[in-house]
Amino acid sequence: MKGLFITFEGIDGSGKSTQIDLATRYLTEKGYRVYLTREPGGCPISEKIREVLLDPENKGMDPITEALLYAAARAQLIDSVLLEKKNEGYVILCDRYLDSSIAYQAFGRDLGVEFVKTVNRAADKMVPDMTLYFKLSQEQCDERINRQLRDRDRLERESVEFFQRVIAGFDYIAKTEPDRVKTIKADDSIERIALQIRVYLDGLLEGTHE
Amino acid sequence: MKGLFITFEGIDGSGKSTQIDLATRYLTEKGYRVYLTREPGGCPISEKIREVLLDPENKGMDPITEALLYAAARAQLIDSVLLEKKNEGYVILCDRYLDSSIAYQAFGRDLGVEFVKTVNRAADKMVPDMTLYFKLSQEQCDERINRQLRDRDRLERESVEFFQRVIAGFDYIAKTEPDRVKTIKADDSIERIALQIRVYLDGLLEGTHE
Repeated sequence: MKGLFITFEGIDGSGKSTQIDLATRYLTEKGYRVYLTREPGGCPISEKIREVLLDPENKGMDPITEALLYAAARAQLIDSVLLEKKNEGYVILCDRYLDSSIAYQAFGRDLGVEFVKTVNRAADKMVPDMTLYFKLSQEQCDERINRQLRDRDRLERESVEFFQRVIAGFDYIAKTEPDRVKTIKADDSIERIALQIRVYLDGLLEGTHE
Repeated sequence: MKGLFITFEGIDGSGKSTQIDLATRYLTEKGYRVYLTREPGGCPISEKIREVLLDPENKGMDPITEALLYAAARAQLIDSVLLEKKNEGYVILCDRYLDSSIAYQAFGRDLGVEFVKTVNRAADKMVPDMTLYFKLSQEQCDERINRQLRDRDRLERESVEFFQRVIAGFDYIAKTEPDRVKTIKADDSIERIALQIRVYLDGLLEGTHE
């Protein structure tokens, strides 16, 4: 069997991690070899880049620097891990991928889709076979925004606008690539979401199984 | 006085460092405030990126990853140091800059000039007022190539071709931007080169001095 590359996208707290664990168990029990990874990171060089990105000491990072570091970590992961694992027949489950850079850097940081796609040209070699986008309901969005607005200083208002642009970015991707991107309602129950994902996985695996 | 941004380019061993030291001394003695920096590095985040780039453990780095890391370090240096120092009136002397990425990544690694310029779009805000390119003579080039070819395995031949592409890259830049890039014959004596650079510096400073 040729491998598969499946990405999980959405903002933090949308329930991705729980579902990645459940999908891993489901696929493993069905006999597939699953390769679990995450971004940024997943190989020694990319983990070092992750440290630079996530070190709280590195406040004041330029948005372009940030976008380039995410892209650098991704290019290395593709080159040294993902291409090989897919060739070897693994089902790769990846927590965040290019769509997160489009949502956070292109939309959130206003760097533009074209720029972010160009710096991520390595990802042209490794397009996801399926992406599961965990979309918050309007109610969940409002609730988060209200929580942030309770403290009404400038920084908080900026972070609300950033959050709204990121959400708009994910929605834009889901709308423009409906064949690849499956939208999951993040306010459904864990069981209902897990079931929905199993249906998507079965559909995809039928198409590729020998 | 408005500041100036002067870059020193060329392959390792072409005599850049000696001349940067001499130029620093010359300008300081004339009363200018000199800000000396180097790439990759020059500020905390970029120094951390430098560590990832130069760590010998990180062999097998993908050429795209490498190009993105150099660009990330540069964007941060521009954003957090260079723009400010130039505004404050410093004469900035920088050991390597965008031209090195064009020569090593676009030409040497065959990534193409357009890609490398796009990922370095932060550098559009900080174009050098003058670049001194230390060009090896044909004799110096041949000598280096012969030294490398003495050990004729595949890796060595590859590194000869890489070296030739890098040289071609620097020559291309010097040819296409003759107003900005001054070519220095790297086989001249230290004293003659220092004198030539002082003439270039005086010409540039006359135009900007209050």
